Amino acid sequence: MTQNAEHRVVIVGAGFGGIYAARALRKAPVKVTVINGTNHHVFEPLIYQVATGVLSPGEVATPVRELLGKQKNTEVRLGWVTDVDPDAKTVTATGPGGAYTVGYDTLIVAAGATQSYFGNDGFAEHAPGMKTLDDALDLRGRVFGAFEAAEVATDPEERARLLTFVIVGGGPTGVELAGSISEIATRTLRGRYRNIDPASARVVLLDAVDRVLPTFREPLSAKAAKRLRKIGVEVRLGTKVVDVDADGVKIETTDGAERIDAAVKIWAAGVAGTALGRRLAEATGAETDRGGRILVAPDLTVPGHPEIFVVGESGTLNRLPGVAQVAMQGGTYAGRAIARRLAGKPEGKPFSYFDKGNMAVVSRWNAVAGIGPLNLGGPVGWLLWLGVHVFYLAGARNRTTAMFRWVISFLGRNRSEWSIPSSRMPS
Amino acid sequence: MTQNAEHRVVIVGAGFGGIYAARALRKAPVKVTVINGTNHHVFEPLIYQVATGVLSPGEVATPVRELLGKQKNTEVRLGWVTDVDPDAKTVTATGPGGAYTVGYDTLIVAAGATQSYFGNDGFAEHAPGMKTLDDALDLRGRVFGAFEAAEVATDPEERARLLTFVIVGGGPTGVELAGSISEIATRTLRGRYRNIDPASARVVLLDAVDRVLPTFREPLSAKAAKRLRKIGVEVRLGTKVVDVDADGVKIETTDGAERIDAAVKIWAAGVAGTALGRRLAEATGAETDRGGRILVAPDLTVPGHPEIFVVGESGTLNRLPGVAQVAMQGGTYAGRAIARRLAGKPEGKPFSYFDKGNMAVVSRWNAVAGIGPLNLGGPVGWLLWLGVHVFYLAGARNRTTAMFRWVISFLGRNRSEWSIPSSRMPS
Repeated sequence: MTQNAEHRVVIVGAGFGGIYAARALRKAPVKVTVINGTNHHVFEPLIYQVATGVLSPGEVATPVRELLGKQKNTEVRLGWVTDVDPDAKTVTATGPGGAYTVGYDTLIVAAGATQSYFGNDGFAEHAPGMKTLDDALDLRGRVFGAFEAAEVATDPEERARLLTFVIVGGGPTGVELAGSISEIATRTLRGRYRNIDPASARVVLLDAVDRVLPTFREPLSAKAAKRLRKIGVEVRLGTKVVDVDADGVKIETTDGAERIDAAVKIWAAGVAGTALGRRLAEATGAETDRGGRILVAPDLTVPGHPEIFVVGESGTLNRLPGVAQVAMQGGTYAGRAIARRLAGKPEGKPFSYFDKGNMAVVSRWNAVAGIGPLNLGGPVGWLLWLGVHVFYLAGARNRTTAMFRWVISFLGRNRSEWSIPSSRMPS
Repeated sequence: MTQNAEHRVVIVGAGFGGIYAARALRKAPVKVTVINGTNHHVFEPLIYQVATGVLSPGEVATPVRELLGKQKNTEVRLGWVTDVDPDAKTVTATGPGGAYTVGYDTLIVAAGATQSYFGNDGFAEHAPGMKTLDDALDLRGRVFGAFEAAEVATDPEERARLLTFVIVGGGPTGVELAGSISEIATRTLRGRYRNIDPASARVVLLDAVDRVLPTFREPLSAKAAKRLRKIGVEVRLGTKVVDVDADGVKIETTDGAERIDAAVKIWAAGVAGTALGRRLAEATGAETDRGGRILVAPDLTVPGHPEIFVVGESGTLNRLPGVAQVAMQGGTYAGRAIARRLAGKPEGKPFSYFDKGNMAVVSRWNAVAGIGPLNLGGPVGWLLWLGVHVFYLAGARNRTTAMFRWVISFLGRNRSEWSIPSSRMPS
């Protein structure tokens, strides 16, 4: 079913960048191949709600075929792209039956980023990050499993350790996780145990800088920190994590070093480039930032390689934040640029990011949102958050069920999805 | 928070038997401890819908604490019960922090059953069964993963093998799986691939006996087989599976031996007792059936041990079928019997099973149901199935979202939950 002599566009990754790029090419005279390591697109801003038992995996992870299956000029292939050869113009992927190679005329790398442990990759084992569906489901097991373990533990110190949750990184993900775990402890699980009081759980949010949500405007950071403290989260700023082991973390503040014993540690700090990004940089001689992400030209291409676009967190341009909107707009920009070239039109303007604003949920009915000149908080911020996320969620079905679950979990105190398969329950 | 001097009832297992037993004891002057190997109760009749991407894990698996958390006299502990000592009156469980022991005055074993491979336990690796949430999620990965692998496969024979699904066992689970996989191939995935036609998938349902649904009345078996064949399922009866390996199955019919190459094999035939059941039989000298399930007395106790009840599939009495209703009624019977004893009332009547009927979904809008003297099929059977399952599903929330998903997936052609985390995707 290949249409020969057509311009072949290969898109690596089906995150926001890849999906928006593919959609921007739907009417272009091209053959698009989207290669993704899993069968689904993840709505990353909501993945913490899978981890904390509000949403089901299917509500934040939509099969790529459901999103692009009707787009006639596009095929979707399962595979982890491991290599790119800019001379031969091919990418190599590891698929279900082994490795395969696909040729391209134009390549769009939208492969996202990985967690950065700032050189301490050994931390990963004990303080996993939350990028994939697997990460989120494992974290769900760790969080709810800790309460189960505490219920049958007999040693008070061990019980306290099991009921301590440390979140490293005060960005939106860290704030949302801290708020959610605090809710779980004080509301969802209230009255459900006989030997422990879930509300005695300690939720600690750490960040090396002096405020939470550092990419937001200062008044919003202050609002979020105040609210988090009100619901019982220990917000510790100017605090550096110097070690992580199975039993806890070691931190350094201006007051000196300290140890926090904690069964559950979550890493929500920093992003780094992927192995594929490093391969691409080597092969093209492109420069990277400290995290290994490619420094792209103003038109999102790799310098010297106008046929290779890098969008979203795989690349970096003008220190744009690693948010969904940057990837969506970058993907659309790349898709349109390719269509324009093929139509023989002159190159368009450089990529410019239109900042629609920032938002993060802090607790029940409470979110902070910076939209244009407005700094919103509390229930107004939350309603805005709700509207925006319902609008952007993929598919009418997910919108309906997610909205239903939000209303249920915010009105009542139950969460829909905290059953943990044995394989995800920590032993 | 233990209440001393109270009668201690330990319930092993939070399936239908365990939950109904605990609920029957809610007003009794006892301290109930429910020990379960996972944090959730599984609504087993619907677990195939998790495997086939219709329902989310949380819709069929409800946390035990959500079901019993408000019952003041009951505590819930996570643990796999590995041993029982009828003399010391204790059970030993492996919990999140290691082994622990709990003493009982009365014990209710409601630990379910395992898959029986009729002596060929080596089949399990290649043809897993579907008892747990893990099983269902793994199967989801196998089924949807096979289509992804076929899409990138280049060898036509391998492609055919990847698109062949063999289900062993024509009971309700086998029939429901065969019908669902056929639907996935012909409806859900239609038009979503470029290199394969999902509708070319082969779905083969095998059983050694001469009809499907052998525990149903004959006209219903005939209706179900006819419908399955109409939607393209190869129903092969009188067919014995003599070998299973990674690449397929070997079968024997009256016409001789044959090999079917198939990537996905599912075992839905036969149940056997658990390791705990065997331990209990050894310790009490109780007799077991061929599958290793305890032959219980007419009051569901272990002969000679009036303080030990065995309910649901852990035991066997009068060859009752392994259905939810038998476990529910057995659990309620055991709970009430204990309450009656403690109130000083005389022993009640022996357990008698009230057969409310049988039903199985065959395809979209089509189920067979035997209720009293009625043999129903088609849309009428399906509506009945819908009503009964909505009624019995745990919790208003699950009822609402499951109903929504059923309507969506039966009216439209999408399934809500077919995103597969990498760890569940076969490589």
